[in-house]
Amino acid sequence: MCHIAGMIDAASSPFLEDAAALLGARGLTTDPELVAPWLTDWRGRFTGRACALASPADTMELSALVRLCARHGVPIVPQGGNSGMSGGATPDESGTALLLSLRRMNAIRAIDRESGRATCEAGVILQTLHEAADAEGLRFPLTLGGKGSATVGGLVSTNAGGCQVLRHGSMRALVLGLEAVLPDGQVFSQLTPLKKDNRGFDLKQLLIGSEGVLGIVTAATLKLEPAVAERVVIWAGVSSLPAARALLLHCDAVEGRSLEGFEVMPQASIDAVVDHLPSARPPLEGRHAWHVLIEVVADHTGADTLRERCETMMGDAFDKELVEDAALSANETQAEAFWLIRETVPAAERARGPAVQHDISVPVEAMPAFVETTAPMLEAEFPGTEAIAFGHLGDGNVHYHVIAPQAPDARAWNATQGKAISRRVHDLVTEWGGSISAEHGIGQLKRDELARLGDPVALSMLRAVKQALDPQGLLNPGKLI
Amino acid sequence: MCHIAGMIDAASSPFLEDAAALLGARGLTTDPELVAPWLTDWRGRFTGRACALASPADTMELSALVRLCARHGVPIVPQGGNSGMSGGATPDESGTALLLSLRRMNAIRAIDRESGRATCEAGVILQTLHEAADAEGLRFPLTLGGKGSATVGGLVSTNAGGCQVLRHGSMRALVLGLEAVLPDGQVFSQLTPLKKDNRGFDLKQLLIGSEGVLGIVTAATLKLEPAVAERVVIWAGVSSLPAARALLLHCDAVEGRSLEGFEVMPQASIDAVVDHLPSARPPLEGRHAWHVLIEVVADHTGADTLRERCETMMGDAFDKELVEDAALSANETQAEAFWLIRETVPAAERARGPAVQHDISVPVEAMPAFVETTAPMLEAEFPGTEAIAFGHLGDGNVHYHVIAPQAPDARAWNATQGKAISRRVHDLVTEWGGSISAEHGIGQLKRDELARLGDPVALSMLRAVKQALDPQGLLNPGKLI
Repeated sequence: MCHIAGMIDAASSPFLEDAAALLGARGLTTDPELVAPWLTDWRGRFTGRACALASPADTMELSALVRLCARHGVPIVPQGGNSGMSGGATPDESGTALLLSLRRMNAIRAIDRESGRATCEAGVILQTLHEAADAEGLRFPLTLGGKGSATVGGLVSTNAGGCQVLRHGSMRALVLGLEAVLPDGQVFSQLTPLKKDNRGFDLKQLLIGSEGVLGIVTAATLKLEPAVAERVVIWAGVSSLPAARALLLHCDAVEGRSLEGFEVMPQASIDAVVDHLPSARPPLEGRHAWHVLIEVVADHTGADTLRERCETMMGDAFDKELVEDAALSANETQAEAFWLIRETVPAAERARGPAVQHDISVPVEAMPAFVETTAPMLEAEFPGTEAIAFGHLGDGNVHYHVIAPQAPDARAWNATQGKAISRRVHDLVTEWGGSISAEHGIGQLKRDELARLGDPVALSMLRAVKQALDPQGLLNPGKLI
Repeated sequence: MCHIAGMIDAASSPFLEDAAALLGARGLTTDPELVAPWLTDWRGRFTGRACALASPADTMELSALVRLCARHGVPIVPQGGNSGMSGGATPDESGTALLLSLRRMNAIRAIDRESGRATCEAGVILQTLHEAADAEGLRFPLTLGGKGSATVGGLVSTNAGGCQVLRHGSMRALVLGLEAVLPDGQVFSQLTPLKKDNRGFDLKQLLIGSEGVLGIVTAATLKLEPAVAERVVIWAGVSSLPAARALLLHCDAVEGRSLEGFEVMPQASIDAVVDHLPSARPPLEGRHAWHVLIEVVADHTGADTLRERCETMMGDAFDKELVEDAALSANETQAEAFWLIRETVPAAERARGPAVQHDISVPVEAMPAFVETTAPMLEAEFPGTEAIAFGHLGDGNVHYHVIAPQAPDARAWNATQGKAISRRVHDLVTEWGGSISAEHGIGQLKRDELARLGDPVALSMLRAVKQALDPQGLLNPGKLI
């Protein structure tokens, strides 16, 4: 046994000998320096150990590797960009698992411009896909903070969301075809998209969002949209979250097909952004209980009238007293500056000090009441805390932070008060018919909370399907269920 | 044993005694006259027997009934409007199964106008839903020939398609929430829609399209769209299927977001319609190799410019020599008259004489080449036959009929030549990467063909999930897998 990062000596394991023979030096390593960076999740919350790091070159090599693992009873932890939020790609501490990187399988196999789709291997980085689509006059309409590291395989396996779900849906809606290696090493191959196919229930949909516990995604055929020819980003100040919801309904009724994002931030978060990033300039002079970022886009068909339509939409919103103030981005630089403020909120909030964070959703129409009801409740139950919410109001999904009282010992606070607060938030979300994981998945972070609060009927279905497809329990053990 | 329609005497069965006590006289019958109409599918291809017909009043009653069936080992065959195309709701001939009608559970529990959704019980008839949505200024954007009988439960269980899939997707894309009774009687309840929810893989999606073999759909929350404020139906004549495809790409590029239907019919089908329905008047004077029906719609936001945009779109199509001739509907009466011709094609084709029919799909872009390649091939291999295709070119889904040679004995021809032709068509579809069931499902009609031609990996997954969720094999046995 080596002592760094939990590596074991390759020579001591018949499995590793076979794996090394199969994958070669480039495809398998036990070098602690090479492996260590991938044993801790990017937020530093989870650290595990692994018997080796495998990086197969292609699907067939991975298939053979998975068969080998099945024969030797070696658990497998698949990993893409290691930028997940829930520890779903970090192995446990036993050191028995093989850490499986899909990053070497990073070819964009094809982009079909006419049909609007791309076939990507699991290791393709989201930003790379954005650039490749852009070069064809198209776009892949999903983006998120980790786009520089997040991979297609990870995005599919976690059914990633982001800021464009309002109009385009999450990954589930964008995956037209899928290829995956199953727990017994067989290759599930449905990359060729059929718009209509009713040969039984949809196995693609079963694998999407399964966090690697049912199969290892190796490639996906993804839907592309026409490139954005024009966009207007609107910044509005409103008096309350219900007012923000009323504005959303107004915008949706007028420009539903062009409305791509609807994000809310409280004044406190804007203040935090200005503290954190002094160069940031809030678009509105005044202070407002809530700030709203609205993205409206058009492809070539509606580009010439977009700005005028947005002006009319916001003029009507003023007339209906839905907004206190509003500004439209005058150009792309300003549009990006507006977005920068929104995108800086998470970091700015983290910089304010220790907090527990929750990625939650409730039915879209219930979100304003949920925040207005539960935030004062939590602040009363946990004196000195501050509960703030920001994010995707249009999806009924906010990031809900409860900030610690001034100057506690962050680690100790998190372990005691923080844990109690999270339980309480999850209880409340469940009471309101919501989800304790809106877009970040369950991973190992929320596995126990899902077991505690999930619908027993749904949990028993999840477990039955897992048992049926992975009877040895070798795929990403300890995650999700 | 009684001798009509395979009923058994209730007094002879402890199960039926218990079921009668549970459901009461309105909920359970063994009266052959009441049961017989539901033992044969509407096309008269399949006839089965059943031990009784159960019509529970609500989900809890159904749950108790399913528990009872599980205890007694009684198979259950769920049925909605009995208007399926694949015998998926017809019991086998053993008479052991309970025929389960969901038609009594027919409440529209709620329509939420603001959020654009309806919660319907399984027995709600599609046309009833259309009317209810219409009364709220909304619409449910899925329709098909059987709308007067097809029920929400059946539509969900078969992932029904129809003529608006091009823009709105099939049922899979329109189900926001689902309630179902599982094989052990437990109730899976996810009717409250969450736009983002990543608590494991999507169990709703597993039940949609599962043809009642994994669970019995009892209710669904469905997506509604703004009502259509204006529509234009365009009839175009083109020289070939590739020309039709080029026209589709043109329309999609110009009016993609308004393009709701793109249907093709060969001249022979138009002739058949005129023979069958002499009052029908084809919109174009001349003859064309292929006729195309294009539906373009707008809600209130684009209604005023729709006609002008359609005129421009078709003017450009003329300039690019994509069409030989075209006519735009001048009003709603004419729009309906155009659609009547399209909707009469199946009946007109059936009236031409014996034929074998196939509901198939291939990748959208491959459909023109598929038809042009395989039709002459089939006509050569089976002398005297005529292969014709019509339908949803925009979805890569056509209804592919092979018409028998003149004056054969229809029944004998179907059993011998017809069967050989269907195998050949399915072989060809499979070679082209397509599906032997685009929108009608597998049921009992195509079960053996799916077993013969389906991807063994996918089949083993389907079977493993079925075994895991229904270990007794009591839900809709003999269907799908």
